[in-house]
Amino acid sequence: MTEALLTQPRLITLEGGEGAGKTSAIAAVRELLQSQGHEVVLTREPGGTPLAERIRELLLNPQDEALVPEAELLLVFAARAQHVRQVVRPALQRGAFVVSDRFTDSSYAYQGQGRGLDAEWIAALERRAVGVKPGLTLLLDLDVREGRARTAGRDLWPDRIESEQDDFFERVRAGFRARAAADPARFRVIDASQPPAGVATSVTGALGTYLATLTDSDLA
Amino acid sequence: MTEALLTQPRLITLEGGEGAGKTSAIAAVRELLQSQGHEVVLTREPGGTPLAERIRELLLNPQDEALVPEAELLLVFAARAQHVRQVVRPALQRGAFVVSDRFTDSSYAYQGQGRGLDAEWIAALERRAVGVKPGLTLLLDLDVREGRARTAGRDLWPDRIESEQDDFFERVRAGFRARAAADPARFRVIDASQPPAGVATSVTGALGTYLATLTDSDLA
Repeated sequence: MTEALLTQPRLITLEGGEGAGKTSAIAAVRELLQSQGHEVVLTREPGGTPLAERIRELLLNPQDEALVPEAELLLVFAARAQHVRQVVRPALQRGAFVVSDRFTDSSYAYQGQGRGLDAEWIAALERRAVGVKPGLTLLLDLDVREGRARTAGRDLWPDRIESEQDDFFERVRAGFRARAAADPARFRVIDASQPPAGVATSVTGALGTYLATLTDSDLA
Repeated sequence: MTEALLTQPRLITLEGGEGAGKTSAIAAVRELLQSQGHEVVLTREPGGTPLAERIRELLLNPQDEALVPEAELLLVFAARAQHVRQVVRPALQRGAFVVSDRFTDSSYAYQGQGRGLDAEWIAALERRAVGVKPGLTLLLDLDVREGRARTAGRDLWPDRIESEQDDFFERVRAGFRARAAADPARFRVIDASQPPAGVATSVTGALGTYLATLTDSDLA
């Protein structure tokens, strides 16, 4: 069993809270990568495979039973273990870029800072169950109240995570910012309070700069 | 977050392969405990809560997608984290006996020996996600071919685990026996090749001896 955590230059992740505009940003990322002739696999977490999507459904709609934080964390990593081995690694191995809407950083933010679970445990799961780390992570950072105002009315029936209170999302946001501050080589923090066109420009700017640093062996 | 693994004298688990007669043995355990005036909670793994039973369904019927071993292990422990906090601990706290058809030893046997995952990782998950250890584990030990002969025809549609080959079940059996050999104070190995009445007598004999060792504080 490998315990190494290998950086994958062609794995790009987008992170951020509710309403930060990840969907439009991902479209901009795909467009730029495809314009440079790359194969792009868009995926998301939790999910990305039919089985992992069934785990997502358990996470978001546990029905009448309270999901304990430890079970939440293990379900997220079960889905990620499946996603990495069935989708992410095969795509990277054939030379594609993989663009994931959320990845392991979300576990540090939501289950770590949000639920209060130990970061050292999450790091151990990352090494054992995931083994890969993005080359670039775009963090769409936005004030919690503004994000929630943007998503208000989007879902008639908010899911279990969307139903959390502001203090939970403040801890999540602080968790993401701390991750970014600790690893500035990998993270680009995007000001998501800009109008959508401005966010897209910031995202493609950061991505273009990153792509220019990649070597032929990173792209092979 | 606790990392302690505390032995719970009133947590009794039954382990063993397919066809070893766990169901009849559990009935005998319940009868003896109730005859001594104890409240008994019967439960099973994976499962034991509605949400954990939904995880069990994912494990046994992943549909068309191959479930990777790491995801299998994390799903089993997600279900167990939920089961322990929602069912096992509350029952123990009110003074009941909890009798579980399978528990953490099954992960060492099936995901560890069976799938080849690292026992040290399983031990870390046990400390973090479970935190409790049975006072008594009855291992119903049976030749693999005999067990499979007994279950043949029981299920028209065998599940994902039942569909494994004999060498998988040989590793699982060896895994259980190694666990028992390493912790003789907790395990009683029952010869499950006996006729059902003999198995029940062995089980109640082992349980009666165990119960006689419990102190008032173990039972409080």
